[in-house]
Amino acid sequence: MDKPGIRPILESVQNYKKLAVLGPDEINRLCAEIRSLIIGVTLKNGGHLGGSLGAVELCVALLRVFNPERDKIIFDVGHQTYAYKILTDRLDRFHTLRQKGGISGFPRRLESKYDAFDTGHSSTSISSALGFAKARDLRGLGHEVVAVIGDGALLNGLAFEALNNISECDTKITVILNDNKMSISPRVGGMAEHLAKLSVSAPYKRLKQFVKDQCRAMGDGRRVERKLAAWKTKLKSLLLPANVFEDMGVSYWGPFDGHKTREMEEIFELSKRYPRPLLIHVITKKGKGCAEAEESPSFFHGVGSGTVIGDKAEIANTPRMRDWSGAVSKNIESMASEDGRIVAITAAMEDGARLGSFKERFPDRYFDVGIAEGHMLTYAAGLAAGGMKPVVCIYSTFLQRAMDQLVHDICMQKMPVLLAVDRAGLNGEDGETHQGLLDIAWGRGIPGLTVCAPRDRADLDFMMTGWLERDIPVMMRYPKGAITESVSRVGDKTAPWGKAEILRHGNGACIICMGATVSPALSSADICEKKGLPVPTVADLRFASPIDWKTVDGLLFSHSFVVTAEDGYKNGGIAEAVAARAAGSGSPCVARAVGVDAEYVPHATRDEQLEGQGITASGIMALIEDFYGVSATREAG
Amino acid sequence: MDKPGIRPILESVQNYKKLAVLGPDEINRLCAEIRSLIIGVTLKNGGHLGGSLGAVELCVALLRVFNPERDKIIFDVGHQTYAYKILTDRLDRFHTLRQKGGISGFPRRLESKYDAFDTGHSSTSISSALGFAKARDLRGLGHEVVAVIGDGALLNGLAFEALNNISECDTKITVILNDNKMSISPRVGGMAEHLAKLSVSAPYKRLKQFVKDQCRAMGDGRRVERKLAAWKTKLKSLLLPANVFEDMGVSYWGPFDGHKTREMEEIFELSKRYPRPLLIHVITKKGKGCAEAEESPSFFHGVGSGTVIGDKAEIANTPRMRDWSGAVSKNIESMASEDGRIVAITAAMEDGARLGSFKERFPDRYFDVGIAEGHMLTYAAGLAAGGMKPVVCIYSTFLQRAMDQLVHDICMQKMPVLLAVDRAGLNGEDGETHQGLLDIAWGRGIPGLTVCAPRDRADLDFMMTGWLERDIPVMMRYPKGAITESVSRVGDKTAPWGKAEILRHGNGACIICMGATVSPALSSADICEKKGLPVPTVADLRFASPIDWKTVDGLLFSHSFVVTAEDGYKNGGIAEAVAARAAGSGSPCVARAVGVDAEYVPHATRDEQLEGQGITASGIMALIEDFYGVSATREAG
Repeated sequence: MDKPGIRPILESVQNYKKLAVLGPDEINRLCAEIRSLIIGVTLKNGGHLGGSLGAVELCVALLRVFNPERDKIIFDVGHQTYAYKILTDRLDRFHTLRQKGGISGFPRRLESKYDAFDTGHSSTSISSALGFAKARDLRGLGHEVVAVIGDGALLNGLAFEALNNISECDTKITVILNDNKMSISPRVGGMAEHLAKLSVSAPYKRLKQFVKDQCRAMGDGRRVERKLAAWKTKLKSLLLPANVFEDMGVSYWGPFDGHKTREMEEIFELSKRYPRPLLIHVITKKGKGCAEAEESPSFFHGVGSGTVIGDKAEIANTPRMRDWSGAVSKNIESMASEDGRIVAITAAMEDGARLGSFKERFPDRYFDVGIAEGHMLTYAAGLAAGGMKPVVCIYSTFLQRAMDQLVHDICMQKMPVLLAVDRAGLNGEDGETHQGLLDIAWGRGIPGLTVCAPRDRADLDFMMTGWLERDIPVMMRYPKGAITESVSRVGDKTAPWGKAEILRHGNGACIICMGATVSPALSSADICEKKGLPVPTVADLRFASPIDWKTVDGLLFSHSFVVTAEDGYKNGGIAEAVAARAAGSGSPCVARAVGVDAEYVPHATRDEQLEGQGITASGIMALIEDFYGVSATREAG
Repeated sequence: MDKPGIRPILESVQNYKKLAVLGPDEINRLCAEIRSLIIGVTLKNGGHLGGSLGAVELCVALLRVFNPERDKIIFDVGHQTYAYKILTDRLDRFHTLRQKGGISGFPRRLESKYDAFDTGHSSTSISSALGFAKARDLRGLGHEVVAVIGDGALLNGLAFEALNNISECDTKITVILNDNKMSISPRVGGMAEHLAKLSVSAPYKRLKQFVKDQCRAMGDGRRVERKLAAWKTKLKSLLLPANVFEDMGVSYWGPFDGHKTREMEEIFELSKRYPRPLLIHVITKKGKGCAEAEESPSFFHGVGSGTVIGDKAEIANTPRMRDWSGAVSKNIESMASEDGRIVAITAAMEDGARLGSFKERFPDRYFDVGIAEGHMLTYAAGLAAGGMKPVVCIYSTFLQRAMDQLVHDICMQKMPVLLAVDRAGLNGEDGETHQGLLDIAWGRGIPGLTVCAPRDRADLDFMMTGWLERDIPVMMRYPKGAITESVSRVGDKTAPWGKAEILRHGNGACIICMGATVSPALSSADICEKKGLPVPTVADLRFASPIDWKTVDGLLFSHSFVVTAEDGYKNGGIAEAVAARAAGSGSPCVARAVGVDAEYVPHATRDEQLEGQGITASGIMALIEDFYGVSATREAG
């Protein structure tokens, strides 16, 4: 991976066990070495650069004070753990970050005994830490439980529910608030202002000094607590600002500098002797040590593979407007310019959803609610009930956080909300936790929800306009990556709303596809033609719910074999819907399916994942050839 | 409904428009009349007694100050709205409460123009109020938006996300915190203690007096704000306790007595002139005006139809232990007595889940996390990761609140959590919002999750023990109501784990059922026998995921017709799974289904709802007779 000797301290320690021998200067140099390794590998492989750079000293301090074999260290979201991974026996594999068969970009229990709990979605760390802590108490064990959570994740409802439950649980956990003053987009909300006030509060600076001064002298937890309590009581009525954590029965220590290992280590040592639940507030800088990442934290939150830094023009001109997200955002903007009812909402994904331009142009009609998907959907329902036409931009995997709000607040009341479900299907390098494979199956179950997937730009425009013309909730899914500009169609217009569209008429077999599977379906028809096999019919279903049964029934009774192809789980997907229709209608058509099996798909490129699940032209061909009794071949990917 | 003259004031005013003419004494008598009407109808029809009795004065005060045709009043959960319904043109229909075709127990926009937003699940009111308020601002309208939320609902993550978003939204809403000091079970958590402190705080009592004194004198919002601000600044550094609402940028007024209409009206009037977002804290008593309901608030939160009060023995000895919830709770208790790893968790449903006895016997291993389903599941995952075997008792409809936690924290990591999914299927009088119709379809989509449904007590015992013996996540669903003691089986033991069980061997048709549909399936076989039709095979699927395909394939190839029967949505349910298998395997079997159509099923009795959806022996018979070409009959229900 590297030339020998390029990172001498890291090479000499190899893992956390030898960190104890290093002096302060060596620790600083170690952090610099880790940083350069993270920058090199992340720019090459893609990954979460800003968060991991910001947490280098924090990970080092944690590993010098806590024992990751015994203590449970739970990283919220888990995208900030690169330094932790490097120092817990994954140095030699770190260059495989996010590559197929390599190490994950997130904590994974199956990857390492040092990863206590799998994460990927935000705000789970306090709940799971409480679970670990109660289990420890019930089993009579004595290890520490530490949750490391960012300020954006802390402001999510799940984290609040856990914080609120701490005092009732009557157990000891330590929450480390890694406050870099922004979640993915700059954080928003009243509580953020509260945190900001705490960060500059003089009394807390004095408390910090006190804690530091007392740290070495005290051995006994009860004494520490008594001292702190006495000191704080003196101050409380006059000086201490309102503090929501103390209000909730959680002791608050901070803020501390999250780039000074020595200071953090002293505090962490003290925390082990403190008997009550505790929140330690550390301030870090996202992208620390990489000027470009410090300057453009949103851009460098997650970078694609092969990113080059140092070229500002490159950062500004990334061809993002040519992806699906950019096309959707552009459409929202153009709809908004003609219809004052259009508003756009995101949950901390301004950059991912390419909403920057909308925000600039329509600041009053743009809402970033922070990492709060549940609130976002109910808020959208309220806006719709009040006469607006809200477009919610959300990743498929995060929509899982707001399923009840989708049912209870949007669909049951038939609110005209457009859910623009981004990153639907297989998503590549982020792996298991970020796949968008459930939206078709779950969405189909919801009465009153129209579920659709455009195959190209014209169909996207048609579906968005179609929603605007109607007063119904619509979930429109589209994948990560470049938009398909145009798929040849019969005639020059897209099919009507709610209708499937036959893109190629054939016989024998029929391929029913949707969204991202339209292209491989058409390719497999071409392959059949080339091979002299009967050319199959190719139909774009377009609407997964309600399904255009008239067209589908026609296909089921005019073909002897149907293959459905979808970029989602087969269980509950269009595969089952179409096959069940065949069996229910008495059609003699045999139905087979291409789609994702009932398993969690780990990190790899999206193409590798599609290939692995057979969601390719050759995957479709294999089923067709099997049906025709021809031996299967694999020419096309 | 009543003898004329029994409620003279209510009869004279009829609706809120005439409330203005009443003096203080008449208002008090009106409240008493409304209370007696609520008690009479609710005990007869069943319903949410405690909450609605506690909110009578609040509803009257709201309707005297706000205009429900123009202003938006959003009731959180919505079970406390009986007085509001009575006074907004539903007096003459109130006796139809929760009956088929009658008025709903919750706000329903389709029922009345006075219901601004449909509710049923908790904690949606602040999010939707913000949406209404932003829509108002963007449209240049001037009405008020009021969210009425209980203390239990306020402590849910969704409400927190909305509270946290208020300052950013930069709009005016009024949140009325209806604090009866308990949610469904006594509320728990750090924030609850904070509320309790606010309730007894002397400075706030003085603030209250000040607000009252100033109320009449002031006409201008800016002046009110300036006065309040000046007064509060004087106090703040010395006297005011920490206040989480003010910390979040929401003005806090309170606490006020929620049973004094005059006091509340003055404050509500003032709130209309106050230009900033505002939380008004009122203290009410759950069950107010009904001694028994005040004394046993958990029991009287929701009562069944035909409840008699005044008989304490009746309350104590309700035959709840004979229902599915009671049987599950008893099993958890007996498992816990033999296995120290068993813990039980509920989200504010101690009474509904019949966990009182478990709590008494194993206080250290019982956790009520409050209305916090998301936290509950991630907490369970943490407990499991720490070596416990957690049983989560949750209603099917509320599991919709925690789907991502189920996928991301429990199933992806294969945590050995048992989800005891209560009230699965059609649930009767609570209507649309409380149906448990999505768990099969959504659960089947989740890789690694075993989904099962016991048909009787022996099968329940078997499934719970089976989970304990395995290290896997299991979702076990069971309906509301009395447990089925025993369904005749072939042999004296239940079938092995993961296997379907053929309960009656027949030919021609095959009925594949599960859980609550086993009994009607067996009845339809009896009917066939009686009618001289070929007796169908009856197979209890037992496991909806993964399905026992070996047994099902055998059935699909030995019968010409299969009917699936399930107590859930057909889309994505076992109906589709089995039918798709038939079409995929080349079985000539025709597949039809009994289950719930893609629609929201409104309030009625559970039996009426089952009948309406054809989930009955006669519903199954209709399909069988249709297949045999016999004209359908309807002898059996």
